Amino acid sequence: MTAKLEVQALLYDVFGTVVDWRGSIIDDLSRFGAEKGLRADWAAFADEWRGLYQPGLEEVRSGRRPWTILDVLHRESLDKLIAKFGLTGLSEADKVHMNKVWHRLRPWPDAVAGLTRLKRRYIIGTLSNGNVGLLTRMAKFGGLPWDVVLSAETARAYKPLPQAYLANAAILNLEPGQVMLVAAHNSDLAAAASAGLRTGFVARPMEYGPNQKRDFKAERDWDVVADSFISLAEAMGC
Amino acid sequence: MTAKLEVQALLYDVFGTVVDWRGSIIDDLSRFGAEKGLRADWAAFADEWRGLYQPGLEEVRSGRRPWTILDVLHRESLDKLIAKFGLTGLSEADKVHMNKVWHRLRPWPDAVAGLTRLKRRYIIGTLSNGNVGLLTRMAKFGGLPWDVVLSAETARAYKPLPQAYLANAAILNLEPGQVMLVAAHNSDLAAAASAGLRTGFVARPMEYGPNQKRDFKAERDWDVVADSFISLAEAMGC
Repeated sequence: MTAKLEVQALLYDVFGTVVDWRGSIIDDLSRFGAEKGLRADWAAFADEWRGLYQPGLEEVRSGRRPWTILDVLHRESLDKLIAKFGLTGLSEADKVHMNKVWHRLRPWPDAVAGLTRLKRRYIIGTLSNGNVGLLTRMAKFGGLPWDVVLSAETARAYKPLPQAYLANAAILNLEPGQVMLVAAHNSDLAAAASAGLRTGFVARPMEYGPNQKRDFKAERDWDVVADSFISLAEAMGC
Repeated sequence: MTAKLEVQALLYDVFGTVVDWRGSIIDDLSRFGAEKGLRADWAAFADEWRGLYQPGLEEVRSGRRPWTILDVLHRESLDKLIAKFGLTGLSEADKVHMNKVWHRLRPWPDAVAGLTRLKRRYIIGTLSNGNVGLLTRMAKFGGLPWDVVLSAETARAYKPLPQAYLANAAILNLEPGQVMLVAAHNSDLAAAASAGLRTGFVARPMEYGPNQKRDFKAERDWDVVADSFISLAEAMGC
């Protein structure tokens, strides 16, 4: 990968790529539900919550809705699911706590070690549709050693719109080709490549648990393909 | 300080408060000048460069000039000073290197240790007129353990405009009163307090070397007054 010599920053997709959102939500809400005496299929709850993510973003991307951060979209989806799953007796504080489960997601086991190695040589940061406040608290929760927290919010555009990639490269004073997007999702990498970024694919075959249907492997010749952040660090000369 | 219980994030002024811009620039450019065979009064050069800072920001704050990041303003000032000081034979790469001296500023001796302690309990970040790319590289250079890099750039407003403080509190999903600005400059704290933020003063009596004329001590009853980031950490319960 000769491109590694030009790359100065690795920016990461976060949900699914860096953190195990599904496993974390199931565990967190199962504990919370047990404390509160709530019964639910928390795996189905997590999957449906994530299922409402793209439709929520699309309202903003399409321009039908003004800029709205992901914490707010998550809360709207949560309120729908609380009704759908028939969960009763929840206070406003309970709902705020549940919504902040997205701030309490566990890194995949290789994530912190791999990022720590890459940080020695490159700027490492987020490039997520999560808002800055969410990503900052998640990093403290999981010990993610980001140099910089970039987001759809800092670009005012949700991925995969080109502006989400281009504005964040510009914020770092970098050309698109000096930035690598690292993601577990071929579609995110395709959009980044179209915007001129370099691309790194790390497979996360358990992101959707038993329901995973795609992204088991690289579907294009991305600049780097690795099976963990450790092997990504090795491929990037760290 | 009962307010410490409400504060969730400490955001720092950077130039002068966290890093010794004057001493760093004098040392860095003296070495560079020696390599290049350039002679100049590098202390005067540093002081004049910083002297052009507020007039440059004011062009943007006033609306006379569209949004322009500090790296660009620094470069314009540098070009003026290269002419004024009669420095000749500098290539474009040399000038880029000189301008990036603002990315290579040393933290004050107590800064990293104090921030590391505060990071355990609070979100710690920048709230500087420096742009995100500058602040990110400075943090890597000096080992500053920020959780988040916020800036006039993320607010699209230079301090001391209220929006510089308010937009960055909002980016962290916080009310102004949940954020403390830490600065060595009474005027910055006065603007932050007017916007509703909490305030922490840390004196940096050597910021301007022998030319320092102000900010030797707290001029108002700020929420916390400390003589280093270590004693700030103690005052904040860390």
